[in-house]
Amino acid sequence: MRSLQVALLGCGVVGTQVVRLIQEQATELTARVGVPLELAGVAVRRPKRHPELPPGMVTDDPMELVSRPDVDVVIEVIGGIEPARSLIMTAFTAGKSVVTANKALLAEDGSNLHAAAREAGVDLYYEASVAGAIPLLRPLRESLAGDRLHRVMGIVNGTTNYILSRMDETGAGFSEALDEASALGYAEADPSADVDGFDAAAKAAILAGLAFHTRVTAADVYREGIANVTAADVASAKAMGCTVKLLAICERTSTVDGESVAVRVHPAMIPRTHPLAGVSDAYNAVFVEADAAGELMFYGRGAGGAPTASAVLGDLVAVARNRLAGTRGPGESAYADLRIQPMGETRTSYHVSMDVADRAGVLAAVANAFAVHEVSISTVRQEGRGEAASLVIVTHVAPDQALSATVEDLRGLDFVRAVTSVMRVEGERR
Amino acid sequence: MRSLQVALLGCGVVGTQVVRLIQEQATELTARVGVPLELAGVAVRRPKRHPELPPGMVTDDPMELVSRPDVDVVIEVIGGIEPARSLIMTAFTAGKSVVTANKALLAEDGSNLHAAAREAGVDLYYEASVAGAIPLLRPLRESLAGDRLHRVMGIVNGTTNYILSRMDETGAGFSEALDEASALGYAEADPSADVDGFDAAAKAAILAGLAFHTRVTAADVYREGIANVTAADVASAKAMGCTVKLLAICERTSTVDGESVAVRVHPAMIPRTHPLAGVSDAYNAVFVEADAAGELMFYGRGAGGAPTASAVLGDLVAVARNRLAGTRGPGESAYADLRIQPMGETRTSYHVSMDVADRAGVLAAVANAFAVHEVSISTVRQEGRGEAASLVIVTHVAPDQALSATVEDLRGLDFVRAVTSVMRVEGERR
Repeated sequence: MRSLQVALLGCGVVGTQVVRLIQEQATELTARVGVPLELAGVAVRRPKRHPELPPGMVTDDPMELVSRPDVDVVIEVIGGIEPARSLIMTAFTAGKSVVTANKALLAEDGSNLHAAAREAGVDLYYEASVAGAIPLLRPLRESLAGDRLHRVMGIVNGTTNYILSRMDETGAGFSEALDEASALGYAEADPSADVDGFDAAAKAAILAGLAFHTRVTAADVYREGIANVTAADVASAKAMGCTVKLLAICERTSTVDGESVAVRVHPAMIPRTHPLAGVSDAYNAVFVEADAAGELMFYGRGAGGAPTASAVLGDLVAVARNRLAGTRGPGESAYADLRIQPMGETRTSYHVSMDVADRAGVLAAVANAFAVHEVSISTVRQEGRGEAASLVIVTHVAPDQALSATVEDLRGLDFVRAVTSVMRVEGERR
Repeated sequence: MRSLQVALLGCGVVGTQVVRLIQEQATELTARVGVPLELAGVAVRRPKRHPELPPGMVTDDPMELVSRPDVDVVIEVIGGIEPARSLIMTAFTAGKSVVTANKALLAEDGSNLHAAAREAGVDLYYEASVAGAIPLLRPLRESLAGDRLHRVMGIVNGTTNYILSRMDETGAGFSEALDEASALGYAEADPSADVDGFDAAAKAAILAGLAFHTRVTAADVYREGIANVTAADVASAKAMGCTVKLLAICERTSTVDGESVAVRVHPAMIPRTHPLAGVSDAYNAVFVEADAAGELMFYGRGAGGAPTASAVLGDLVAVARNRLAGTRGPGESAYADLRIQPMGETRTSYHVSMDVADRAGVLAAVANAFAVHEVSISTVRQEGRGEAASLVIVTHVAPDQALSATVEDLRGLDFVRAVTSVMRVEGERR
């Protein structure tokens, strides 16, 4: 009985922990897989910076490493599109199975990767690409394979959740909270991938694809980041018993034209009683609604070296077992091939605050602006008098384009001095 | 390409939903598995009571059904030890894979079942046996297969959680809350399996076995039910910011003699800030602590026809895929073979309320009773004066036998009029 040889691409925050777990848990992993898992090589950009790795194991030539005949499984934790894609494709061609944490690549080019893995008869596993340590993709792909999912809604980006949690707790503005996150190492030097929602959108694409058996790419995901969330928005949310979260929402919707998938990432107000409202700081949680299973929630650490490495190792064990058994796990499932619904058609509900002139007929005129677009109003709150008069309106669900057109019209009304906050509201019983 | 034939044993609350899902989702299941899943037969005690099933499909001879050469997979949702065990064993001998929701059988005889499945080269899947719809066993067995678990702690019985939630909300006593649960159909006519903790203990045994790669049976689980939980206990918990939950706790512990597994089910006070404290009514949730992954929580419906059927169907799809691929999923993993720690050695912390005489030196004498057994006190609260004087003591963790010996001694002290509440405290940072 031989061992299985593992090649690691990248040895940063996650890779270092992957090496540690493979080494520290050697005995357990051998017992769980059936044969030893051995690190065959680690490809890094600057080998000299890794004195902790055994000499001879480190290389700066990842392409040579993934092609080596003795390698069975490749773990890719470099991230980004290239050279990760070429390396993974080469690994497949050379007959290696791949475990990756690369959400950007999966969300951009998942179908081609899956096709290449299928053709080569090898595995592509990527549990670590969404919500770090939280077992989420395997439950969606396997545990819920006999159920019909309606909705997957989650907090899948720790950086933005930390920033929004701080804004909620301290009343700070966005920039102040971002600075704090940066100082604590929760935000990258260039925070755009997190703050502008790109990271969450990639994860949403992966989740939607698995949940609805349809190919979804990052380009299919409607995306708004949190940079425009103000302290006033957060205060306004508080006043109505809500908190602001950056949500990734994947929904199956039915219209006369058949079924569609709507996938979006944007800040939203959710009631404080919703299970996702209590998920603070850098934690992630994903809420799943299924026909038979009902409501499920998965909660845990969404990022960080060790949690992400835990997910990588779980996949490594699965892929290794498959390899020994001469089989492969479930591949891409895109048979449903549902239409991607444009954001304008997606039914959401809006919270709108505006400063208005305190004069007779204002409320009627505002209500009319909603009625014109067939947007039904759920609640109206009027605050202050005179110069400080404001209106807070929460709508029922309506097509997003009708809501945004309404807000556009409100901005044009002369007695509306300013629309001070516009945000979607989610997580209420409909 | 042929179809896969499924035999169903039992058609009660869960079985009915299994039939519904197989029928309603036929197209989806075919796409997900690769070939159609067809119901070959349903074994029930009284065929005449099932006019909803196609005639010719129903039989009262389950043994004949599981032996039929055309059957590929057997779903067992009869429950209990016999005839379920004989039927499953016969199915294995006849080369069928089995999906079951039978926690009692798994917890009593899981190793023999696993051995028989292995020998026959078929699958034994049982996600539905613990926490209904919540994907939990697959994450433990597969997603976390590359991590080292320390602790699994959960609310895994909906009936007792409903009763305790009602006691907490209304101040009702146990009998009153049980009557309410019975009236609503949340408690069985004979509620002993739930109320006395047998159901939770079986699930704890299954969880501990998976988490710690060690054979654990229901007999290894220390078990206390909730029948002795009083309104006073619940009020006392409230006074210290806690709520009372029936917890299933599986822990890996290290002593000078090596590692052990401690598995227990008992009511406990947990801080209201703990994620499990908010899990109310018939919901289940399980908290997992792992070396690399950190803290994870899984939440959802723990019982009911449709949620349990969702878990059964997920297993059915997995088993069907394995069968088509000519492989089988991971079997029993018991290589670690850790010692089962007796409850007396398990380190817990106690909450003790007692009515005491209001005289000088009482606190000193009480403190001494703890000190004699080397139990360290965390907090003391003294309430009332004179005849109504009472002491509430919360200890630090200590071996359970030292704590129970302390309580025994307290009961013998002449100035302790009554020990009014004794309960373990869990979920605090240690």
